[in-house]
Amino acid sequence: MCRWLAYSGSPLLIEDVLYKPAHSLIAQSLHSTLGAETTNGDGFGIGWYGAGDAPGVFRSIEPAWNDRNLRELAGHITSPVLFAHIRASSGSAIQQTNCHPFRHGRWLWMHNGVIREFAQVKRDLVLAVDPSLYPHIEGSTDSETFFFLALTLGLEDDPPGAVARAVGLIEETGHRQGVEQPIQMTVATTDGKSVWAFRYSSEHDSRSLFYSTDVPTLRKAHPDLPVLERVSDETRLIVSEPLRDLPGAWNTVPESSYGVIQDGADELHPFTPQAPSSPTAVPAPL
Amino acid sequence: MCRWLAYSGSPLLIEDVLYKPAHSLIAQSLHSTLGAETTNGDGFGIGWYGAGDAPGVFRSIEPAWNDRNLRELAGHITSPVLFAHIRASSGSAIQQTNCHPFRHGRWLWMHNGVIREFAQVKRDLVLAVDPSLYPHIEGSTDSETFFFLALTLGLEDDPPGAVARAVGLIEETGHRQGVEQPIQMTVATTDGKSVWAFRYSSEHDSRSLFYSTDVPTLRKAHPDLPVLERVSDETRLIVSEPLRDLPGAWNTVPESSYGVIQDGADELHPFTPQAPSSPTAVPAPL
Amino acid sequence: MCRWLAYSGSPLLIEDVLYKPAHSLIAQSLHSTLGAETTNGDGFGIGWYGAGDAPGVFRSIEPAWNDRNLRELAGHITSPVLFAHIRASSGSAIQQTNCHPFRHGRWLWMHNGVIREFAQVKRDLVLAVDPSLYPHIEGSTDSETFFFLALTLGLEDDPPGAVARAVGLIEETGHRQGVEQPIQMTVATTDGKSVWAFRYSSEHDSRSLFYSTDVPTLRKAHPDLPVLERVSDETRLIVSEPLRDLPGAWNTVPESSYGVIQDGADELHPFTPQAPSSPTAVPAPL
Amino acid sequence: MCRWLAYSGSPLLIEDVLYKPAHSLIAQSLHSTLGAETTNGDGFGIGWYGAGDAPGVFRSIEPAWNDRNLRELAGHITSPVLFAHIRASSGSAIQQTNCHPFRHGRWLWMHNGVIREFAQVKRDLVLAVDPSLYPHIEGSTDSETFFFLALTLGLEDDPPGAVARAVGLIEETGHRQGVEQPIQMTVATTDGKSVWAFRYSSEHDSRSLFYSTDVPTLRKAHPDLPVLERVSDETRLIVSEPLRDLPGAWNTVPESSYGVIQDGADELHPFTPQAPSSPTAVPAPL
Repeated sequence: MCRWLAYSGSPLLIEDVLYKPAHSLIAQSLHSTLGAETTNGDGFGIGWYGAGDAPGVFRSIEPAWNDRNLRELAGHITSPVLFAHIRASSGSAIQQTNCHPFRHGRWLWMHNGVIREFAQVKRDLVLAVDPSLYPHIEGSTDSETFFFLALTLGLEDDPPGAVARAVGLIEETGHRQGVEQPIQMTVATTDGKSVWAFRYSSEHDSRSLFYSTDVPTLRKAHPDLPVLERVSDETRLIVSEPLRDLPGAWNTVPESSYGVIQDGADELHPFTPQAPSSPTAVPAPL
Repeated sequence: MCRWLAYSGSPLLIEDVLYKPAHSLIAQSLHSTLGAETTNGDGFGIGWYGAGDAPGVFRSIEPAWNDRNLRELAGHITSPVLFAHIRASSGSAIQQTNCHPFRHGRWLWMHNGVIREFAQVKRDLVLAVDPSLYPHIEGSTDSETFFFLALTLGLEDDPPGAVARAVGLIEETGHRQGVEQPIQMTVATTDGKSVWAFRYSSEHDSRSLFYSTDVPTLRKAHPDLPVLERVSDETRLIVSEPLRDLPGAWNTVPESSYGVIQDGADELHPFTPQAPSSPTAVPAPL
Repeated sequence: MCRWLAYSGSPLLIEDVLYKPAHSLIAQSLHSTLGAETTNGDGFGIGWYGAGDAPGVFRSIEPAWNDRNLRELAGHITSPVLFAHIRASSGSAIQQTNCHPFRHGRWLWMHNGVIREFAQVKRDLVLAVDPSLYPHIEGSTDSETFFFLALTLGLEDDPPGAVARAVGLIEETGHRQGVEQPIQMTVATTDGKSVWAFRYSSEHDSRSLFYSTDVPTLRKAHPDLPVLERVSDETRLIVSEPLRDLPGAWNTVPESSYGVIQDGADELHPFTPQAPSSPTAVPAPL
Repeated sequence: MCRWLAYSGSPLLIEDVLYKPAHSLIAQSLHSTLGAETTNGDGFGIGWYGAGDAPGVFRSIEPAWNDRNLRELAGHITSPVLFAHIRASSGSAIQQTNCHPFRHGRWLWMHNGVIREFAQVKRDLVLAVDPSLYPHIEGSTDSETFFFLALTLGLEDDPPGAVARAVGLIEETGHRQGVEQPIQMTVATTDGKSVWAFRYSSEHDSRSLFYSTDVPTLRKAHPDLPVLERVSDETRLIVSEPLRDLPGAWNTVPESSYGVIQDGADELHPFTPQAPSSPTAVPAPL
């Protein structure tokens, strides 16, 4: 229902990532090509790592394309990790507390997709959130509840495992209440150093997700693109749809898989939800 | 933490009630005399009964004193029942879904005060809300949770009983978790015909609440006030602080009591919370 | 750059006009078919005639499709004349004072189109506004300046003549500064009784504009459409694009013409700008 | 009508200047002691110098005290020069384009006070703005017009002279139209290197303005204030009212004078408006 972008690499001005590409995320807020909705005008947010320990978060209920403050910040802030999200609400209220990315401590989280029949399953899911985390839920979205389930189930220690357990719990809860395909998702999360990105849906027909080709290869293919000279070899983007029509630049994240952008070699793995009732699942605090 | 006003009587332009009195609610949003905070600039809302079955609700996160749309509506809408509320947040987010009045079906609800240590007791209170009502909670305030507890406990059939049970539940929950004085409140609720207003606090030192003297008496005392000629004998106002310096116009709602404005004689009764564990309490759906 | 709707006839709930048709203006705010832009998410406004002499105006910088207050008002207010406008900014700031309809006394005004090279010609045009009207200009759009030019040139006495003189002045000013096609416009204005709608552009290739077929004819063609039973024979809509796929319901306002909806027979006339320097032009207060 | 703060010195986190002092500007937005109004809740703005040549500007129509985005930025951005302003509107619309500081190129401008009878004199003043600058006026305030007059009259080359000429022009224009005391002002302007601050009013009874005592002296008087250890000897604050109750910390800017904070010794001079008709005035482009 939304579009997002995760950047990791050389500290760039946010506008270089957010505004300058031909099909930038800001342009997508008006006209998305691959989204379930073509307009993503129900608020936006960015998260970045600057001074201070926790990331900064700037969220607004205005459409991203006409927000002057976003343009100001983008022209004056640099960050080695940037999360950006534009929202097309599937019904919940347009308010800052429903805008992504969500933050807890050093962690950011953003989601494109939906927990299906959320009004019906929400109470059970919220009850599964650790009571000490529960008061920190501020908004009313499925995405934020999903984040707090992942935090409850170990996100800060084992992101892939925690997301697998959270999705397993969401699917088991949905199935118990007669929801056939309980979740549709691409998710990104970061602690400011590594970035994890997941692509999954109960129906195995997930929203699009792409990662950028490694920079040395891109430089050879596109010696004329100046921004490539300004970024390190390690720089990587993950996006819900490509930002430029650059041949060879974008690679599909495979169905039911997740990637890790980190110091050293990046990784790509299959993703399998872990149901709470499964014998291989870690004991969840339920 | 807030200021509110409930009007019941001859259909008046909203601006006659909201803007024209010397110490109008809008003036109080900038400079309240009796409030716990002198500025109530964290959003506002009005509820009124016009075309359609359910009341209309207009809520905004801007300060009431500079909201042009509120002034427009106030100059063009008449209503026989008006609820108006200006907010001074005690911490929860400034968003429309946290602005009063709250609505469910034909019912409106607004609250001045606080459920103390709400972050701590919220989970238990939310769990006590009927699961079929739970998905309708949109915001994050204590006041909205209080409303849904009252709905769960029979507000639509027996408002005084439901509020007594809700307050009893809030006090029992708070005490169980070590909160000494769990609630401070003035509350107004209406179905569009009658208005119920409550003044209570666990410490028996409740926020101020006033009701207006009956109109025939006021007309005799103030024959020069034109608005009194335009309203019926049955017209009544309940306010968190007086709107004009009219001698004899305002009467204190006594500590631990509630009033009913209705067709026929209005009523004033003592208010006593009913704890769920009390043998005299009706069985709550817990 | 925008979409708009003018309704005149039996007092209807605003939502009947604004939300219920299949291609309603609210739906067009997300996905317009005929507009220069497909998304009109840069604010909106409505004007209506209720209690009070002057019309009420409700304007917001949020996209119309997700504005809860608009939906509330639309469900509770009826009006015999309704102006509604959704905005796609061509550059000027997103702020309430730039949202249509604009109001002066009993008059409303809304515009789809552009005064070309407005930054360049603005000073000359603003100087042509009557000094007593000048302080009432609150925003920064071409459309509001156009309105104040029309007011200066006699809108309240002779709407078609005043608009012809204003367009003549805009064209002469533009040509003097080298702008080839100074204006593109559909405009609606009303005093709450009659509605005037204009379609014109310097290049004679104007934005789309339609008026609805008279109600008795529509009823015969579409006996199954309940809303037609609730409106008088005199009811009429003018829209920048059709609201429903009703065969025979919508008629193009011809290029370079204007229509009048009024008591008695409606009218359709050719529209010709009157340059200030033209001998047939009335003396303008310049 | 407003409160403001200008900081120049060692790059500090914005929150150190804006939130942490006991009587911080944010606290003043709720409860100002010395302001003409006690509440300054009609929008705010900050300007800072970061990446990029021009300063960044973040402005919002929400009250400063409850704006989460301001708090986020304040916790993550450092700047050697900071302008911050909280607004109490004297009537003009609450919109971002009316919030201070205003920016042109590298220059920032903020104002506390009023051009009296502005609706009456506005047209003449706006006509005196250089036509090439005129299209950059976006809002409707007296303060922005004042800025553009100063730019027209040489602000970028000679700030004290340009402000003297602008004030002279405003006074002459007002007097010509029967306004007895045409201007009341404290003004700050900066190019990112030096800061100029002016205190003046036609009635010689100007709004309060203070500058901080030099840091070495402050350190001796208050060895226990940690923030003083983190800032350079050159660091200086100018404020419309003191931020802390520090004995010896705040000095009144004298009536009808201006100060310059700059590399090397700061300066304090008398301020005298220069009327356009005065033989000593430089020829203004009128």
